[in-house]
Amino acid sequence: MTGSGPVVGVLGGGQLGRMLAIAGAPLGVEVRVLDHKPDACAATIAPLTVAPFGDLDAVRAFAGRCDVVTTEFESVPVEACEAAACEAPLRPGIASQRTAQDRALERALFAELGIQTPRWASADTLDQLVSLAREHPMPALVKRRLGGYDGKGQAVLRSPDDAQRVFAELEGDRGGVILDQVIQFDRELSVIAVRALDGATRCYPLSQNEHERGILKRSVAPAPRTSDALECRARDAVCAIVDRLDHVGVLALELFQQGEELLANEIAPRVHNTGHWTIEGAWTSQFENHLRAILGWPLGDTEARVSGPDSAWEMVNLIGEIPPIERMLGVSGLHVHVYGKGAKPGRKLGHVTRLLDARAPGIGDVPSWLRGLARG
Amino acid sequence: MTGSGPVVGVLGGGQLGRMLAIAGAPLGVEVRVLDHKPDACAATIAPLTVAPFGDLDAVRAFAGRCDVVTTEFESVPVEACEAAACEAPLRPGIASQRTAQDRALERALFAELGIQTPRWASADTLDQLVSLAREHPMPALVKRRLGGYDGKGQAVLRSPDDAQRVFAELEGDRGGVILDQVIQFDRELSVIAVRALDGATRCYPLSQNEHERGILKRSVAPAPRTSDALECRARDAVCAIVDRLDHVGVLALELFQQGEELLANEIAPRVHNTGHWTIEGAWTSQFENHLRAILGWPLGDTEARVSGPDSAWEMVNLIGEIPPIERMLGVSGLHVHVYGKGAKPGRKLGHVTRLLDARAPGIGDVPSWLRGLARG
Repeated sequence: MTGSGPVVGVLGGGQLGRMLAIAGAPLGVEVRVLDHKPDACAATIAPLTVAPFGDLDAVRAFAGRCDVVTTEFESVPVEACEAAACEAPLRPGIASQRTAQDRALERALFAELGIQTPRWASADTLDQLVSLAREHPMPALVKRRLGGYDGKGQAVLRSPDDAQRVFAELEGDRGGVILDQVIQFDRELSVIAVRALDGATRCYPLSQNEHERGILKRSVAPAPRTSDALECRARDAVCAIVDRLDHVGVLALELFQQGEELLANEIAPRVHNTGHWTIEGAWTSQFENHLRAILGWPLGDTEARVSGPDSAWEMVNLIGEIPPIERMLGVSGLHVHVYGKGAKPGRKLGHVTRLLDARAPGIGDVPSWLRGLARG
Repeated sequence: MTGSGPVVGVLGGGQLGRMLAIAGAPLGVEVRVLDHKPDACAATIAPLTVAPFGDLDAVRAFAGRCDVVTTEFESVPVEACEAAACEAPLRPGIASQRTAQDRALERALFAELGIQTPRWASADTLDQLVSLAREHPMPALVKRRLGGYDGKGQAVLRSPDDAQRVFAELEGDRGGVILDQVIQFDRELSVIAVRALDGATRCYPLSQNEHERGILKRSVAPAPRTSDALECRARDAVCAIVDRLDHVGVLALELFQQGEELLANEIAPRVHNTGHWTIEGAWTSQFENHLRAILGWPLGDTEARVSGPDSAWEMVNLIGEIPPIERMLGVSGLHVHVYGKGAKPGRKLGHVTRLLDARAPGIGDVPSWLRGLARG
C-alpha cells in the first residue's frame, strides 16, 4: 500500500457521511460525498460534490472517481443508485435500497423470512384503504409506502371514516400506503448487523431505544435485561435479512418487544443512529465496519467494550440545540460528537455517549446530567 | 454553539497534525495545518497552507485565520512561533518550544527542578569538548544542542581523541553540543501530561518504550511492573516541568529507569508517539486532550481502558513499509492507523494498537503477529 488508499463515494453528505469519513481517515480511506446541499455537514471533513440526486450525469461522474459507492440514507432515489452502480461497485446493492424504500416490500420480505411483524396490509387506492380499515382494529397507523422517515409520512387512523382525509394527507395516490396495527410494546429495540463481501456477518449487541415525536432521543446498549433467547432471535432475523438481500455493509433492524416476542418494524440499509454508541463502546465502530465491508476487507470485532454485565453505553441525541461544549466536556466520561450543522428545531445536531456502570446513575433513569446541561 | 466551531492552526502537517485533525472533527474543531511540503500527510484531512516556516508573512497570515495556534514538532523555528503568536494565542508558548529545542536549556531546567538526569555538560567549542571529554567517562554521547530528533544529531565519543571528528560531524560550531553519559538502564519509559489553560494537569499512565536506531518501535502502556512510587516520581517530574514552563497542552517526558531510579532524558512539548495508544486505550486520547487544553476547555479522563491489572496496550510503529491492510485488519482486536505517507526506509508510515491481556501473548514477547504480517 502506498500513500493513497481507496476512495469511497457516499451518496448523501449528512452526519452519517461525516462519521464515515472520520472513521475512514485512520485506515487511509478517502471518503467523498455527494449531496444537493452546498452546506452538507460532511463537507468539512470530506470533499463534497454538490448536485441533486436527479442529476444522473453528475452522479455517474462522481461514482467514476470512486473505488466503491455507498449510501448514507435510504431515500436516495433508485435511479441515482443505478447510475452510480454503472461506474463503480454499489454496496449495499439496489435490492437493499429498493426494499428499505418501500414499506410494503419490506414487510413482504419479513413475511417471506418468517419474521413476525405487527398486523399490516397494503393499499394502493383509497377504496382499498377504506375496505381494509373496516376489517382492521382501530386505531391504526397509515404509513406512506415510499419516502417516510423519522415518524414523517405516517398518520393515525381512528375510524374508517377518517380514511379519505388520511389518504389525501399522506398523498397515498403517490405510491400507496400500508395500514399498520397500533401495538402495545414493552420497549423498542434495534439490532445492527454488518455483512462482508464474502457473506461473513457479525452483529452488535441489541440497543434499547426511546423515540420522541418519531425522532430517536436515547439509546442504551447492550440493551439491559435482554435474555439470550431474545438476543438470538433478533440476530437470526437480521442475519436472514442481510443474506436474503445479499447485503454488503451495515444494516439495522428496528424491533418492538412484547414479553419474549419480537415484532419487526423496519430496516435501514446503512449505518444507524442506534449504533452511534459503537464509536467508543464497541471494539470496532459501525462506521469502520461499514467501510471494511464495502471495501472487501475483514470485519472487526463487534463486542461491546463494557466494564461488566451491568454496564452499558448510553447515547443521547442533541436535537434542536447544543449545550455549550465546555459544559458537556466538563462531564467526566462524556464523549461529545457535534455535526457542524446549524441549529433548527427537531434537527439532529450531535450526540453524546457515556458508559453507565455501577458508579453511574442507573440504567433507565432520566438522564438528568444532560437535562442539566441543556438548561445551560 | 452554531455550526461553526473554533479553528485550530497547527504549525506542521505530519501525522501528528493529521491525528489532531481527526480528533477535532467530532468536537466540531476545524484543524488547519501549515507545512512547507505540498504533500504533507495531514492535508487529506485538514486544509493545508504550503509555506516554509521562514516565510513569516505567510505564518502570520495563517495564524490570523485561526482562533489558536499550536505546533506538532519541536523544531518549528522560534521566529515562526513568535510570528504566529502575534496573531493568535500560541499554545504551548514560546518557552516550551525554546526549551525543547535546546538540549542544554532542557537539561538546565531538569537540574533547576531537581529532576535527575544522566551526567552531562555543555560545550560551545571544540576546545571545551576536548577538555570535558578528558574528565568524562568514555564512551560518551555527543549531541547537538539544537535540531536533533529520532536519534539524529548525535554520535558516540569513544575517546577524547575522537572529539574533533565528532564535533565536526555534528557541526558543533552551529550552536554547540552537550556531552552526555552513556548509561545502562533497565528500560525506557515516558510519561505524558496535559495541562489546561487554568493550570489543571492530568497524566497518562507511564509507557514502556523500545527504540531501534533511535526510532520508536514499540510501546506498552500502562508500563507493566511499575511501582506506585515510580509512577508518582515520573508524574511529579512532568508536572513540575509543565508548571515551570506554564505549558498549555500535551507534553511528553522521556525517562530511563535504573532500578527504582528515574533519569530524565528529554521532553517533547507536543503530542507524542508513545501516546498513540491513547486513541483506543485511554478514556480521552492525547490528541483530544491537547485540543481541549489549548482551546481552554476542560480536560478529559486520562485513565487507561484496560480489562484488568495485567492488561496493557501495545503500540507498534509501521516503519518504512506497511503490511497489506487486509492482513492487518484480519487480526482480531488490532486497530490500524495509516498516515497516507509514501513508503521510505526509516519513515513512520503508521501504527497499530491492540490490547494485551490474559488471552493474548505475554507482554514483552516479540510481536510475532506483526512480524508475520510484515512478511506479507
